[in-house]
Amino acid sequence: MKQNIYDNNTFFRKYEEIRSRENNYNNLLEQPNFFTLLPPVKNKVILDIGCGMGDFAAYCIGQGAKSVTGIDISSNMIAHAKKRHVHECLTFEQCAFEDLTVPNGTIDFISSSLAFHYIADFQLLIKKIRTALSEGGILLFSLEHPIVTANKENENWVTDQEGNILHFAVDNYHNEGLRTQNWLVDNVVMYHRTMSTILNTLIENGLQIEKILEPIPTEEAVSKLPSLKKEFRRPSFLIIRASKS
Amino acid sequence: MKQNIYDNNTFFRKYEEIRSRENNYNNLLEQPNFFTLLPPVKNKVILDIGCGMGDFAAYCIGQGAKSVTGIDISSNMIAHAKKRHVHECLTFEQCAFEDLTVPNGTIDFISSSLAFHYIADFQLLIKKIRTALSEGGILLFSLEHPIVTANKENENWVTDQEGNILHFAVDNYHNEGLRTQNWLVDNVVMYHRTMSTILNTLIENGLQIEKILEPIPTEEAVSKLPSLKKEFRRPSFLIIRASKS
Repeated sequence: MKQNIYDNNTFFRKYEEIRSRENNYNNLLEQPNFFTLLPPVKNKVILDIGCGMGDFAAYCIGQGAKSVTGIDISSNMIAHAKKRHVHECLTFEQCAFEDLTVPNGTIDFISSSLAFHYIADFQLLIKKIRTALSEGGILLFSLEHPIVTANKENENWVTDQEGNILHFAVDNYHNEGLRTQNWLVDNVVMYHRTMSTILNTLIENGLQIEKILEPIPTEEAVSKLPSLKKEFRRPSFLIIRASKS
Repeated sequence: MKQNIYDNNTFFRKYEEIRSRENNYNNLLEQPNFFTLLPPVKNKVILDIGCGMGDFAAYCIGQGAKSVTGIDISSNMIAHAKKRHVHECLTFEQCAFEDLTVPNGTIDFISSSLAFHYIADFQLLIKKIRTALSEGGILLFSLEHPIVTANKENENWVTDQEGNILHFAVDNYHNEGLRTQNWLVDNVVMYHRTMSTILNTLIENGLQIEKILEPIPTEEAVSKLPSLKKEFRRPSFLIIRASKS
């Protein structure tokens, strides 16, 4: 199933509104941590899966990448990306990863920020990534943490009657697969996978785990967005860097 | 801090009672999964950390291991191990891992079942393991899952008024370190570490992650011990195999 929630106009408008705020979870938590694991991009051939509005792809061009291809299933996203960023070495394509064809062993670095939890067939995804990567090539991706996705269909922060948070509710951890949530619009579909499934799929496809992050916010980030304090109680994101050996 | 709870006689008596039951979490869940990741042991030099009553060490001898050393901080355990298993290639030693000295690069396989969460300095532990392992040597260990240890000081299964389980409570995930719990006796001390700390410590010490298990019980196991059904809701254990590269 190829979900294209970002072409739901209500969703997209609300999403744009959140992302336009300077202080959001992406800018203050996920992106700063993602960047700490970035490999050298100079002269590299790069593919960004779920490129959104293309800012990361354009950043890599600015850092001297040889070429960057950004793909996204959403025509809304690709239209924005093409409008925002123009460069001869930069290509944006509306394309589901499932339909992507890339010559084997040609990509030095594959990046993906918060997109893999929308993809149903993780095994196929990682297999295609392995095939596309050059020897020694790097995969860097972030996704929603399994602790969070396990119980996605329910409200997971449990509070007392005064609204104070008591704890985070985990359930159905080993029941992998489809989850729906109401984020911006009703019934956004995503996929829960366990930590072991995620890591073993990489390893079984010849990708060596180099680093795992479960980001925590800096003091400065918490001062800008106090709700980030909750991140110490359970992680929202998982960021993994792996290399083809 | 070197905890030696197994030399608390009340604890040890209760522990023996649980382990003597055929249907416990170790026999039905942790051990069968642990064994699926066992490397070939024939002609290997093996160290078992937290060897308990020595059954695993003796099993390896039975499988043709060259030599097996079992260490445990508990004199109770070592006394039992020595009584239960005698073989010229089998050594049991009462010893905290912190005090262990092993010639560098001499151990082919280091195993440890449900002991590492009692050890305060994980960084030192893994560093010593890396030094002790031969090139290509294997580390296989199990420990309590970070989802479980995060909130260990509290009752983590949340139930409704009829006692039906609603979910599992996670909290304090990023607050690593000491936890106390009341398991068999009051105030058993253990250490919570995040998934990323555990995995990155291995990687940073030159150990390559080969496989991760978050065990789920078989149908047969659930029929023998119905409480194992809860394991589908959140994992109790984490089992990791890594190799020195």
